[in-house]
Parts: sequence; structure tokens; C-alpha cells
Amino acid sequence: MPLTVKALQKTGPDQPFRVATIERRDPRPGDVVIDIEAAGICHSDIHTIRNEWGEAHFPLTVGHEIAGTVSAVGAEVTDWAVGDRVGVGCMVNSCGTCLECRAGQEQNCLEGNVGTYNAQDVDGTITQGGYAEKVVVDQRFVCRIPDALPFDRAAPLLCAGITTYAPLRRWGADQQVDGRARRVAVLGLGGLGHMGVQIAAAMGAEVTVLSRSLRKEADALALGATRVLATGEEGFFRDHRGEFDLILNTISADIDVDRYLGLLAPRGVMAVVGLPPAPQSLGFGSLIGGGKVLAGSNIGGIAETQEMLDFCAAHGIAAQVETISVDEADAAYDRVVAGDVHFRAVIDTATFAGAAAE
Amino acid sequence: MPLTVKALQKTGPDQPFRVATIERRDPRPGDVVIDIEAAGICHSDIHTIRNEWGEAHFPLTVGHEIAGTVSAVGAEVTDWAVGDRVGVGCMVNSCGTCLECRAGQEQNCLEGNVGTYNAQDVDGTITQGGYAEKVVVDQRFVCRIPDALPFDRAAPLLCAGITTYAPLRRWGADQQVDGRARRVAVLGLGGLGHMGVQIAAAMGAEVTVLSRSLRKEADALALGATRVLATGEEGFFRDHRGEFDLILNTISADIDVDRYLGLLAPRGVMAVVGLPPAPQSLGFGSLIGGGKVLAGSNIGGIAETQEMLDFCAAHGIAAQVETISVDEADAAYDRVVAGDVHFRAVIDTATFAGAAAE
Repeated sequence: MPLTVKALQKTGPDQPFRVATIERRDPRPGDVVIDIEAAGICHSDIHTIRNEWGEAHFPLTVGHEIAGTVSAVGAEVTDWAVGDRVGVGCMVNSCGTCLECRAGQEQNCLEGNVGTYNAQDVDGTITQGGYAEKVVVDQRFVCRIPDALPFDRAAPLLCAGITTYAPLRRWGADQQVDGRARRVAVLGLGGLGHMGVQIAAAMGAEVTVLSRSLRKEADALALGATRVLATGEEGFFRDHRGEFDLILNTISADIDVDRYLGLLAPRGVMAVVGLPPAPQSLGFGSLIGGGKVLAGSNIGGIAETQEMLDFCAAHGIAAQVETISVDEADAAYDRVVAGDVHFRAVIDTATFAGAAAE
Repeated sequence: MPLTVKALQKTGPDQPFRVATIERRDPRPGDVVIDIEAAGICHSDIHTIRNEWGEAHFPLTVGHEIAGTVSAVGAEVTDWAVGDRVGVGCMVNSCGTCLECRAGQEQNCLEGNVGTYNAQDVDGTITQGGYAEKVVVDQRFVCRIPDALPFDRAAPLLCAGITTYAPLRRWGADQQVDGRARRVAVLGLGGLGHMGVQIAAAMGAEVTVLSRSLRKEADALALGATRVLATGEEGFFRDHRGEFDLILNTISADIDVDRYLGLLAPRGVMAVVGLPPAPQSLGFGSLIGGGKVLAGSNIGGIAETQEMLDFCAAHGIAAQVETISVDEADAAYDRVVAGDVHFRAVIDTATFAGAAAE
């Protein structure tokens, strides 16, 4: 018998959110039922449900930064028990057998992973995300949230955290260069960037925030950066040429890729996790001189997501959030788009209790 | 007392070659004098001396694929002796103390390395390249040519060999993936590509040549490729989606970067060593999906160049060359530009003997 839960739903790209009643599947033997405590608002949610990334399947509930408590488990579940503090990120299934899945890179599953919302699930239904009271998820796509992390500050780690942690690890932000800390620049200080700064600093890197202005300087320093540089300043690209070992580009706007690559030392890496809508211009000479690298990164695998959660708990870091109630979701979307959230909006799902479902 | 040697020289970008007499510096204590046996013609020579990469310093002798025999050594030289078979590539000096030099990446020297020709040397003179009877080089920029490698077939290894070897090593062409050979595609089968195919195959990779047509199929298979695919064929990019772990792009023409990245499996790498004159278009989504990498590569360090020469000797590979005499250099340039050389033109410097210097 399926579970009936309240959820924030849109019936079309231009409709406001409404509190609806949706069904969650009856738990399969390998499933975990999670009572959701907090659900982060990721810019991807907005792109998806506003049809900016193609036609979404309506009515739709989004949300892939989910934190909560296990309230039931299927008969074959051995690793999770009622009461466990857990999270779910951007995926809820994958084939489990391809090279990528076996390598712990489920996000790259050669059969295609199943997204947490707006994706066709293995049973043919369309997945519904985390702006809801409960979710039912295959046990393999659940991560443990350490006790040190509050739900609201942990939820965004399931997307923003792993999105920044994975490239920082892959490209050695935690490794020294010639006896000194790696010089990491984080481009953009929004939901992703503010996690990138904290994680890179916790990894031992020397972190610089690159932002259009110095407006966010105090925030950046509080998050662990050693300095903020304003990219709009006269002579910026000349004055800081060759200064960084790694640039984490978290912005989704067009950038002058060649000039940013010029900020890298030889063998430096620019990792991109933000997706500008238009193609960018790239001179191959900007990569060839100095043997530089331009690398994409897309969330991370489940084991690495767990590693990231444990890392954040061990280092006392988490998302900086503004908690909102279910009736503030529309306003929060506008504020996210305006870059006005400090740094992640998270829905307190306890506020479903006082909301009448349509 | 400086050495006087015959050299092929141009007095301007549109002038033909002439045999001139040039001076080589009196060997310093750390210098090696090399009697040149063979000098490869690299496309970079042509770009430089035709002013396609900026204003060259005329009169100029180019050539940075140099193979020969040590004929004298300075007082402080201990590693080289008269009679040694040696080579010189694209650099003849660097600071030796910066991070990059200490890491064996002299090509990335933070003070700038000294190019083998058309560069300002440490004494302020303009370096003159290898289309000559002799060259005088700092001992640190000399590599040993194993006895198994004939001079003419070894000379191109000093540029074309290391240019392809370094990225193939860096990006794991010699490493298995999940118990199988790495799937390497070599884009372009010219001077660089024909070395890339041989080296990748010798590293144990499964090598595919990507070329506009199947015209070079027999050559590619003889060099060690397992197949050739024609990129111009209908449906090519769809049919071979995700098939490669590594693409070595050796061509200098514009390419549809996004479509080529689509040929890579997740976590795949496209290494670029060819420099198209214009910027390319790149959608960041082509890198983000699958966590792919676009990497530049520029020759390699001296130690790695030695490693490459030893590798080639151990595996019985070398450049496929057409040997020409000094009076055929102009014609050879036209044939290189036309893509008509099979696969590298090498000047037999013994033919200076019969040429009168102007």
C-alpha cells in the first residue's frame, strides 16, 4: 500500500508551488523510507521546474538535497535501521554493474542513473524529489549523516557539498605542492562556492575567492578564504597571472576561459561545475602552454558522498543556510535567482504539518 | 674561438633557404659540441620562419629535432664524452631552480626556457637551430640516443616523439582500465600522429586512428593501430559515442570539440598538442557530463625525453622518415604543408659537405 505524503508541487513551469498529496511507492525489500527533515533548494531545481533545461514532467516535486530519519526499512535492508540519520542526493538508482558503477561513479552509470526527480524510475514512474514529508529510496543511494551535522545544514551537502568536494579531491586540493599548500581559487561565492571555500580550506589549501567585487569579502574570510580578489579590477588578469594551482569555477555565466587559464601555474587545473547556457570560447594555446587542464565534474559517487559527509563532520563544516517554511518556496526561488540567499535556502519540512494539501 | 659551421638559413620569411656560414659559441665549461647527423623538419619550424607565429629574428636557422655525435665537451662536463650518440630537442636552457625545473618540467620553466632557435639565449644572442653541421648546447639539455635508433629516425623523436609520449603517459595510455587495454584514439596521422600511434600501441593501448578518410588505413595499421575510423562518415559521432578513454588530438585545424568529447567514455581525456590558430567553441556541459578532461600538453621535460628515447629503443619504434638533402629543404617545406610527407622529412646534414656556403 503506497504511502501518501504532502509535497510541494508545481503543475506547470509558470505555476506557483502548492502543497499537494503525492504517493510514495510501497517499500521494496531493498528500500528505505525516510522521514524528511530538511530539503535544500538547488539552482538545478529551479532550472528544471521552470523548463529551462527542457520540458519537465508535470505535476512535479523537485529537491535533491534531502536529509532526514529512517522510519522504515524493507526486509532485505541490513545497513540501515529505523532512527538512522540519512541523506539522499541527486540519484536514486543506477545499474550497479557497469564499469562506472563498479568504480563507485554511479553518477556516470553507462545505463544512465535515475535522477531523484523528473526522471524515469525503474518501474516507469517519474521520480518525485525531496520537497516532501517522506521519500522511499533504494538503500544503495542513501548516505549516513553524522550526528555532528544538523539536518538543515547537512541537506545541501548532498548536492552542493559533493559537487565541490569531488573535483577538489580529484585535482589535489588536499595535497601539497613542493612543501606548500595548494593555491586554490574558488570562482563565485554562492551555494556551490561557499561549500568549495570551506572544503578546500579544510583540506589544507590556501583559498582565494574570485568574485566580481569585494562585496562578499567578510563572508569569504569567515568561510576560510585567505583573501578575496575582485575580477573586475583593472589589470586583474595580468597581476595574478600564474598564481593558482587549481581554480574551481562554480559560476554558470559566460567567462573568458583563456584569461582564467592564464591565472593558473603550469600543470594547473580549472575544474568547472557551473554550466553556462552558451558555448564558451577556448584557445587551445591556453591549455598547451604549461600543460594545463580544463576538467568537468558532475556531483560524485555514493561512496565519495559518504566520504564528504564524514569529512565535513570531522572538520566542523556544513552549509550556511536560511531555513524557510513550505509557503516561502516561491519567494525563495526568486531570491536564489537574484543571488540573494546566504548561501543556501533549505525547506523545513516540519512546516508541512500546518499546511493544508489541495 | 667560435666554431664556424655551415647551416641552412633564411634571411626573411619569403626567402628561400641558403647555405650560410654561422658561428657557434666557443664551448663553455658545461657545454657539449655536437656534430649533427640528422635534423628533422617540424611544422613549428615552418610556422616560425614564415612569420606565422610572429616576427622571427632573421637571418635565422631553425630545427629542433637534432641527432648527432658528441665531438667535444667543456671542462666541467662529466656525463658526456666524445663519440656519444645524442639528441637535442626544443629547449637548450632553463633556470634550473624554479619549481618546474626542479620537477623535471623544464618546458614550463617559470623564468621561460630558451628555445633551440629564434630565442634569446642567456648571453643575449639569438639561438640558431639544427639545420646545421654542428650545435653547441648546455650539457643539461642533451639526451642520449640509444644505439638501436638510427640518427635520421631518432631526430624527430626529440620533438614529435616527446610531444606525443608525454600526454600518453600522463593520461595513462600505459595503464589498463578494468582489466583491459586503454582505448586510445589518435586524431590525425601526420608527423605527430604517426608517433602517437606507435607509442600508444607500444604502451599496450588499443589504438584507433581518427582521420577524415580511410586513405591512410594501411599506414595506420602498419604503425600499430587496430583500426581506422573516418570522421567524415555519416553518423560517425553518434556511432562511436563513448568509445574511447583517451583522445590524442594532433591536428592543428578547427574541430568540433563537443562532438569529439562525446566520443569519450566517462572520465575520459582529450589531450591536445596541435594548435589551431583560432579559438574553439566548447560547451562546458560536454566536460561536466561524465567528468571529462580537456588537457593541453607541450613537449616534455628532459628526463622524460630521455625516458621516451629509451622506451622507443626498447620497443623498436622510431619515426618513419624521408631523408632529404640540404638543397631539398624548400621543396620539403611545401610538401609538409601539403601533408604529403610520409611521415617526417629529415635533413641529412652530411649533404652540407657538397654545398658551397654563400
